[in-house]
Amino acid sequence: MPATHQPLDPPDRLLCGPGPANVEPAVVAAMQRPMLGHMDPDLQDILAEVVALLEAVYRRSEGLTLPLSGTGTAGMEAGIANLTEPGDTVIVGASGYFGFCIQELARRYGANLVAVNADWGEVVANERLLEALEEHPDARLLAIVHAETSTGVAHPLRELAEAMSGSETLLMADCVTSLGAIELEPAQWGIDYCYSCTQKGLANPPGMSPISVSERALERIRRRIAPVGFYLDITLLEQYWIERPAAYHHTAPILNIYALHEGLRLMLEEGVEARWKRHAEAGAHFQRRVREGGLELLADPGHQLPQLTAIRVPEGMDEKEVQMRLLQEHDIEVGGGLGPTAPSIWRVGLMGPNATTATADRVIDAFEAVLADAGTPPSP
Amino acid sequence: MPATHQPLDPPDRLLCGPGPANVEPAVVAAMQRPMLGHMDPDLQDILAEVVALLEAVYRRSEGLTLPLSGTGTAGMEAGIANLTEPGDTVIVGASGYFGFCIQELARRYGANLVAVNADWGEVVANERLLEALEEHPDARLLAIVHAETSTGVAHPLRELAEAMSGSETLLMADCVTSLGAIELEPAQWGIDYCYSCTQKGLANPPGMSPISVSERALERIRRRIAPVGFYLDITLLEQYWIERPAAYHHTAPILNIYALHEGLRLMLEEGVEARWKRHAEAGAHFQRRVREGGLELLADPGHQLPQLTAIRVPEGMDEKEVQMRLLQEHDIEVGGGLGPTAPSIWRVGLMGPNATTATADRVIDAFEAVLADAGTPPSP
Repeated sequence: MPATHQPLDPPDRLLCGPGPANVEPAVVAAMQRPMLGHMDPDLQDILAEVVALLEAVYRRSEGLTLPLSGTGTAGMEAGIANLTEPGDTVIVGASGYFGFCIQELARRYGANLVAVNADWGEVVANERLLEALEEHPDARLLAIVHAETSTGVAHPLRELAEAMSGSETLLMADCVTSLGAIELEPAQWGIDYCYSCTQKGLANPPGMSPISVSERALERIRRRIAPVGFYLDITLLEQYWIERPAAYHHTAPILNIYALHEGLRLMLEEGVEARWKRHAEAGAHFQRRVREGGLELLADPGHQLPQLTAIRVPEGMDEKEVQMRLLQEHDIEVGGGLGPTAPSIWRVGLMGPNATTATADRVIDAFEAVLADAGTPPSP
Repeated sequence: MPATHQPLDPPDRLLCGPGPANVEPAVVAAMQRPMLGHMDPDLQDILAEVVALLEAVYRRSEGLTLPLSGTGTAGMEAGIANLTEPGDTVIVGASGYFGFCIQELARRYGANLVAVNADWGEVVANERLLEALEEHPDARLLAIVHAETSTGVAHPLRELAEAMSGSETLLMADCVTSLGAIELEPAQWGIDYCYSCTQKGLANPPGMSPISVSERALERIRRRIAPVGFYLDITLLEQYWIERPAAYHHTAPILNIYALHEGLRLMLEEGVEARWKRHAEAGAHFQRRVREGGLELLADPGHQLPQLTAIRVPEGMDEKEVQMRLLQEHDIEVGGGLGPTAPSIWRVGLMGPNATTATADRVIDAFEAVLADAGTPPSP
């Protein structure tokens, strides 16, 4: 038996790591509303409204768009689990942690994996992905990370999708760090399966994974032979979220759904393009100040995300110590490198309510104070 | 694009269906605390504290106890996914929706399923389960539902576990509706894998699935050959929740974890046995009044759960209409039969903060008012 525990009293942090970002106050307030049961007709109306809002944010009305009752990683797994069958050829481009994670999932699900890799911070060239597709025209799926959270690299997803137009191979994109932060047009570009999270561009707490599936991907799922697990079975989830009366599948995380409703509503109130623009401006401002301070960015400059910046740790400086001092002295969270093979970097996210030039300034000011004190002041 | 949406304004319901129950106000308040990032050292301390609290509530300190970042159904899937490999013999007893659901999962995961079924409302006799075990001594797993949410039946789990003592076959129990509501002693009885939810006995919103795994089950998981998916991989989750520094696996649903911390804390403050007693008393009171009102219960009287009561719908009465009138006229949610093969029943849960005789009276008074008005007054 543990000793008596006290209620939690966590400190107030500015969350400018790779995610979560801080939650919009109105979103937290929405989680205080009276909780309905998952079979309540009023909740069924709310589910339908969340789907409509999510379709507007994903800008796709055909196919299937809904949030999974798990975090972004569940969205990644649902893609591999539903879109592939054991023995299928699956091409996965990777130049960072999350690309490698998709590859690991493909392996675990028994795919014949074709890995197309590049160095951390590089973009996996579309030409190389298309070459792999030419070599494996029977590939069931090609997967790529739109916004690589571990490096700050933006993949030219639109160009890839356009080049794959006419191919029978499905296109899956990890949009965990892109949805709500940078341009994303699944329907217009032709992305068969997107998955994202709630705790970045959507200014929600983590807990759900919004996915968007094209009509042709849904048809493939319906024609598959091998069964899908259960919790992430997209066919069952479609019956639960869309059909009325809904078939029971699981107990939806109701307060997270209230939060998502409010987060999506606020996003549409701001305007999807306006939110992209806000992220672009905050990120550009931050990166300009980082460079002016003499620090280097990891990502290929032609493919730098605005919302997530990976800064190379200067020679001789302790990555962890700087991170800890930012947290303890300035109440600012930034990330470090992700995974044992990551380069030595700090990762700064300006997402959701933190995508402002004012927040960018607060973070870079704190960085400069800590670095100056750490003995290596960035020279202007 | 949808029309402009308004913030949610859901009605205030007394949630006395099969779950979710209403959330303790202190739990909702805990979700308002400042959100930390999932790699924050302060959050790591909170994760460790949640594990300690959950071990106290599950009353098991060996093995592995932690909450999955999904609802109870994720806990069910994690059991089958981690404890079995394709081709394994798996014995599953079922006499209600959730037992059949475990059987469906075992099939989907490629098990050689031995189904031991009984009618809805009956208990699957331990003798029959033990006979199946004798016929299949190589069975990897035997699974049963401790508290069948679809019928209100309590399985004699302790007796089953004791009879299986010495068997190499692992024992898995669905404790979604039992944890925090009726006696449950995984370590003392010898249950290898328990899974539950947060929205019933723990008085939390839905969103997480607390699991408890025995040491020998963990060893089996470590020795398995076939890979486990990823999101529900217990080995990876152990590294994420227990090892320090934690290895990244997914972004934990932080506000749900705050809620769980508070829910578990309140439960230990009340006392685990005291909470069982409260559920027992409220349920007994409710069931006495139901019988006095001339209504019949579905469950075998020797195996009736206190926290979940299935009431047979009297001949000629409309199940759905009564449910709707309770909701609309009395703001009380009760459940109906679950799934197309369920008998015609109402399901009343008195769980979490609703496990009081006062709430029991409120529900039965409302029932009597609606039934009287529906033309068939229950005779005293």
